[in-house]
Amino acid sequence: MGHLSQKEYEDALEPLLHELSDAARWIQETKQRLVVVFEGRDTAGKGGSIDMIARTLNPRQCHVIALPSPSERERDQWYFQRYVEHLPAKGEISLFDRSWYNRAGVEAVMGFCTSQQVTAFLKSVPDFEQQLVDDGIYLYKYWLCCDQEQQEERFADRLNNPLRRWKLSPIDIKARALYDAYTEARERMLAATDAPHAPWTLVDFNDQRLGRLTLLRDLLDRLPDTKLPSENIPWPKLGHDPIKERYGVMKPIPAYRWHDKND
Amino acid sequence: MGHLSQKEYEDALEPLLHELSDAARWIQETKQRLVVVFEGRDTAGKGGSIDMIARTLNPRQCHVIALPSPSERERDQWYFQRYVEHLPAKGEISLFDRSWYNRAGVEAVMGFCTSQQVTAFLKSVPDFEQQLVDDGIYLYKYWLCCDQEQQEERFADRLNNPLRRWKLSPIDIKARALYDAYTEARERMLAATDAPHAPWTLVDFNDQRLGRLTLLRDLLDRLPDTKLPSENIPWPKLGHDPIKERYGVMKPIPAYRWHDKND
Amino acid sequence: MGHLSQKEYEDALEPLLHELSDAARWIQETKQRLVVVFEGRDTAGKGGSIDMIARTLNPRQCHVIALPSPSERERDQWYFQRYVEHLPAKGEISLFDRSWYNRAGVEAVMGFCTSQQVTAFLKSVPDFEQQLVDDGIYLYKYWLCCDQEQQEERFADRLNNPLRRWKLSPIDIKARALYDAYTEARERMLAATDAPHAPWTLVDFNDQRLGRLTLLRDLLDRLPDTKLPSENIPWPKLGHDPIKERYGVMKPIPAYRWHDKND
Amino acid sequence: MGHLSQKEYEDALEPLLHELSDAARWIQETKQRLVVVFEGRDTAGKGGSIDMIARTLNPRQCHVIALPSPSERERDQWYFQRYVEHLPAKGEISLFDRSWYNRAGVEAVMGFCTSQQVTAFLKSVPDFEQQLVDDGIYLYKYWLCCDQEQQEERFADRLNNPLRRWKLSPIDIKARALYDAYTEARERMLAATDAPHAPWTLVDFNDQRLGRLTLLRDLLDRLPDTKLPSENIPWPKLGHDPIKERYGVMKPIPAYRWHDKND
Repeated sequence: MGHLSQKEYEDALEPLLHELSDAARWIQETKQRLVVVFEGRDTAGKGGSIDMIARTLNPRQCHVIALPSPSERERDQWYFQRYVEHLPAKGEISLFDRSWYNRAGVEAVMGFCTSQQVTAFLKSVPDFEQQLVDDGIYLYKYWLCCDQEQQEERFADRLNNPLRRWKLSPIDIKARALYDAYTEARERMLAATDAPHAPWTLVDFNDQRLGRLTLLRDLLDRLPDTKLPSENIPWPKLGHDPIKERYGVMKPIPAYRWHDKND
Repeated sequence: MGHLSQKEYEDALEPLLHELSDAARWIQETKQRLVVVFEGRDTAGKGGSIDMIARTLNPRQCHVIALPSPSERERDQWYFQRYVEHLPAKGEISLFDRSWYNRAGVEAVMGFCTSQQVTAFLKSVPDFEQQLVDDGIYLYKYWLCCDQEQQEERFADRLNNPLRRWKLSPIDIKARALYDAYTEARERMLAATDAPHAPWTLVDFNDQRLGRLTLLRDLLDRLPDTKLPSENIPWPKLGHDPIKERYGVMKPIPAYRWHDKND
Repeated sequence: MGHLSQKEYEDALEPLLHELSDAARWIQETKQRLVVVFEGRDTAGKGGSIDMIARTLNPRQCHVIALPSPSERERDQWYFQRYVEHLPAKGEISLFDRSWYNRAGVEAVMGFCTSQQVTAFLKSVPDFEQQLVDDGIYLYKYWLCCDQEQQEERFADRLNNPLRRWKLSPIDIKARALYDAYTEARERMLAATDAPHAPWTLVDFNDQRLGRLTLLRDLLDRLPDTKLPSENIPWPKLGHDPIKERYGVMKPIPAYRWHDKND
Repeated sequence: MGHLSQKEYEDALEPLLHELSDAARWIQETKQRLVVVFEGRDTAGKGGSIDMIARTLNPRQCHVIALPSPSERERDQWYFQRYVEHLPAKGEISLFDRSWYNRAGVEAVMGFCTSQQVTAFLKSVPDFEQQLVDDGIYLYKYWLCCDQEQQEERFADRLNNPLRRWKLSPIDIKARALYDAYTEARERMLAATDAPHAPWTLVDFNDQRLGRLTLLRDLLDRLPDTKLPSENIPWPKLGHDPIKERYGVMKPIPAYRWHDKND
């Protein structure tokens, strides 16, 4: 079976987005809080998955959190401190593009922290997450998988497509040689931090479109019934002919003559 | 002449995005700062234009700023204070989805501030912007125009499409009756705040795709020559067969059976 | 036995401040983190105790945290979120002038939260504090006691002394009628949250000077041995006659003629 | 004439503090904003002056701003950006312990910035301050003077008194050799940035107590008439005997036996 075409993907996605939109309205109106953690292989498709969700929702409600490397001072703080700042308020959704699990992933594999720190992290994270869930937060964690063959193809695309070149970081080159180490780090992390109150879900992203559909379907299934009666927005007639723009101080610039380029 | 098709738009956009990508690299490497202000008619297409730019660039470099209504405390501060916080550092781009010009637009028209405050704002803004430009910031301001007929069509789409319903705010209903008042407020604002160091550009967004191309072409033309020699990223061979994912603690969930739905 | 005189207090305090200063240097050089929570009866002397400590130390190292009432958005967040932001980085000291224990004190007694919220708070706080202590933070909690007779005298002083009037809040009037309710809330809080890793200490502040000495002595005794070899700062001779101020653009204003007032 | 004694100082200060307290109430009730900039020679007495004011006022109203060295990112921003963040809201007072004038002082003298940056700063600061004053902020700037003889004595005190040792920074040693360079930098700054809307005042701090009185008297004289009718806070009788503390879960610790030390 081949990959989904763009058309197949869009047709399959449409009804899921409607469900997602309903869920967001339920979160807002019943004042829930949702945290979704996106982790996974480099190039697996975290960004695209987050985009699929975030583009459908009101950015005032749904926040994407992609923190840079910690500052000197943040490195000296409680490890979770800089993430806590971005937890959702009631009615909000926080999508973490990488998260506190950096410590068990990239930091562990690349040696950016000590193995004692990794061990301490893995021990403390279930309690930390328990606190959030006890406070009423819904917390779901996804790890996006892909084979190295796919990863290599996607790295090559980033290398060769100037529009995507910025996605390629020096760390990526090193990560290629550490595919197995990442696998081992993931397994250790799953063993220590998969819990009923904050479950991990692995999703196969060798086909990114299919992966996104699978992830979104799973996320929607995990939320409670989110059906609410549909909104009724009163919308009066305009009552006069629609008005045209009129210009005094300056006029719009001439339109871009795109067709000239194709003559 | 009819509207651009999606295909025409994408073909025309592609080379512009490459220029944009080059410009962003120039901003980063030569440590420039770029501020682009997006204002305009409701539904004109600010969000889509910002998205066109932001999706092409590294979110670490290019920040979209869409501030909520000011808090009680912010209302009591220097008017520009909460915007200043989001000015770009060297190498960065700040795209303002609405901006300090709220005071001359929605706040003025809806009566959220006094007319003295509007007058004081219009008097102070050229000096404020001069400060930024003197400090080396590139500052360009776009106002997106559309006739009320288009606006009504787009409001209707938001009303009827649940996926876009969140874009419809109670203020929109009131704004429909104030189309002319917005025009007048815009003209007054242009007269007071168009300046060589911080120019306004009006772009016709009755055709949104064409509007986006026109805006981006104009923005690129305003930047200095941004050509830099192309990057050379060393990319060694993998040196072994690509590795496959292997799973211990848990396995990926089954793929979403999208095709079942279409049988 | 009467109250300590100012002179007796200062003589007794001096050596303790030297120990405190040593402890702060130890915290800085060995990269410890210290959190001290100050709770207690209104007027008991939290502010004065914190001042005694903070004035001795470098404000870059020792931070006083006295948060205002939570904003609307903060009320909708994880309860601990706004406090976490102020936890110390390595080498730092955070003195909390009131703290997360507001929920078990003023909020519980005044009805600013539900009794379910109090119960949930008391259940969650030991785990929250365990997380911090497991991360290496030293955490000590003080509750300052005083009889209502003293409290009334101090309220009267605030009422009659314009320099201290700002310390009197509308809540204080109501708190007078709730002296017993505060006692009960304190006892419940102590029973639920006194723990070896984050102990509570009650200090009698009927004599505020004696209370401060007692608190500081206790705090110093709880810290590990903080002796470090003394610093040696090389301090060369000036090598020339000391220079006098000289003025060009403007001169200092004339000195305030305080003596005229007393003639 | 010798230095003021502590007793003389306190007697002379008392009525000024009452005026200050009145002024603060006026600021709060009439929703003014006050910025006071404290600059001056190292050891001149900025900290003590700020303390004199801040200790009298409600810390919720009166904020002391003593920013650390700029972070890497702050260094890449608009120079005023990190200071703007701390401007007062209506009803508030901001006391800047050093300020944006660092660029014309320590940064210029120590070579932490280029001479072009100093020149650009001196050119831009009057416009920046005009913006604030036009917005209704009261802005006063004090430069505290002292001869090198006094400075040397105070450095020696910091060197020899462990309680004040933290006030001694490595930069201080270097600053001693640059007394004259600081004078020249000050004169250039005064010439460029003293303005009717944002005046500089030089105060002689060779006698620190007298300097503080002089500064405070001047500040109070610059504010408009701040008299308001006195507040009337209703304060009902308690209506029962005052209640004594009673203890269940634990008792207060024994009082510190300070007298034993003196036997």
